[in-house]
Amino acid sequence: MTGTLYGVGLGPGDPDLMTRRAARLIEGAEVVAYPALAGGDSLARAIAADLIPVGVEELRIELPMSPDRAPAQAAYDAGARRIAECLERGCDVVCLCEGDPFFYGSFMYLFARLRSRFAVEVVPGVTSLTACAARAAMPLVARNEVMTVLPGPLSDAALRDHLGRADTLAVMKVGRHLPRLRALLAAEGLLEAATYIERATLGAERVLSLADAPDDAPYFSMILIAKGADPWL
Amino acid sequence: MTGTLYGVGLGPGDPDLMTRRAARLIEGAEVVAYPALAGGDSLARAIAADLIPVGVEELRIELPMSPDRAPAQAAYDAGARRIAECLERGCDVVCLCEGDPFFYGSFMYLFARLRSRFAVEVVPGVTSLTACAARAAMPLVARNEVMTVLPGPLSDAALRDHLGRADTLAVMKVGRHLPRLRALLAAEGLLEAATYIERATLGAERVLSLADAPDDAPYFSMILIAKGADPWL
Repeated sequence: MTGTLYGVGLGPGDPDLMTRRAARLIEGAEVVAYPALAGGDSLARAIAADLIPVGVEELRIELPMSPDRAPAQAAYDAGARRIAECLERGCDVVCLCEGDPFFYGSFMYLFARLRSRFAVEVVPGVTSLTACAARAAMPLVARNEVMTVLPGPLSDAALRDHLGRADTLAVMKVGRHLPRLRALLAAEGLLEAATYIERATLGAERVLSLADAPDDAPYFSMILIAKGADPWL
Repeated sequence: MTGTLYGVGLGPGDPDLMTRRAARLIEGAEVVAYPALAGGDSLARAIAADLIPVGVEELRIELPMSPDRAPAQAAYDAGARRIAECLERGCDVVCLCEGDPFFYGSFMYLFARLRSRFAVEVVPGVTSLTACAARAAMPLVARNEVMTVLPGPLSDAALRDHLGRADTLAVMKVGRHLPRLRALLAAEGLLEAATYIERATLGAERVLSLADAPDDAPYFSMILIAKGADPWL
């Protein structure tokens, strides 16, 4: 009997925003796997830290900071091999993933490599998207409204094609793109409707109007734009 | 001292997919409020049932099934008045909400009516969106991919404007619109990429290719379309 691979969403950062299923799987884990920055911290492990049993086997998957895809692919290849070894000897593996595993989550790369050979259960988690909305007190979509989620690194032309169409826009992965994104949104008349949220539900959280946001935004930051004046009534 | 209003996301239906914070707030509640179909069941209450303390005060907000907005607005007005009475006498109120409060959630209507007068904390929840993706084993978005969320009741023309643009599409609130949506997606060449998910994480869950989905889909159903062949590697 081979083991089961669990892809467990941890939510946006506050450990209390983990689901009960995620917490139970971590508390009962034999092996936990998680991504980490090469030579640095693992946010996923930090979110789950209080629940990881003492003495559990830990598989740390070190991801290079390179923007190239090949080094990251090699890291996921190696991580998947180590996870497969555990599964083949009958151990279950609980793979920790910030946010939700299938919403810009690191687990997707392991899932693609292992799903054909092993039983996999994906445990959805609270996304940074709705966590940011909650912390900014900004309802996202109601009734028949449309929302589009856009990664900040996209080109201005690619972003502009979407900005006019949806009722609500979420720009993820803002980071160093903030000055460019702010200029683009201002040119499109959307600056006043835009809120900037940084490290939502983590200790150092900040919520600002985009006009007041710092030029050097961290990777874990988001811009939310709700165009309706108060469409909620 | 007035009380605090908690808008608590319960997740997609499986009580284990509730966050730990949601569970603790419900377990410690003095007053719980929740929407219910007029004369019928409350899915929100059913999800939380095992955690609601015995003898707690329950505010049931009956929503008419009418497609008109005025009757629902009147129901939310009346519900907000009853919640305000509790808050004014110093009780906290835990308002139960399926999924996430700010993602097509019923709590938005109470939030709009009460936010200016009372302290409000919104507890984000797992959305049906990522729960459906998990159950269908369908990664949603990776890297710089774009996702658009579309309500099924929108017109064909409104839907068509979005279908070609995003890498991933989620069509919510499918229900009786399924035959029309299926025809539209087939005409756009998207039928083979479309998966139908019904009552995700609930007992009667079904995951089918859209081609095989029933014409009489329930309200709690979704279509997910991921255009990339296997963009996850």
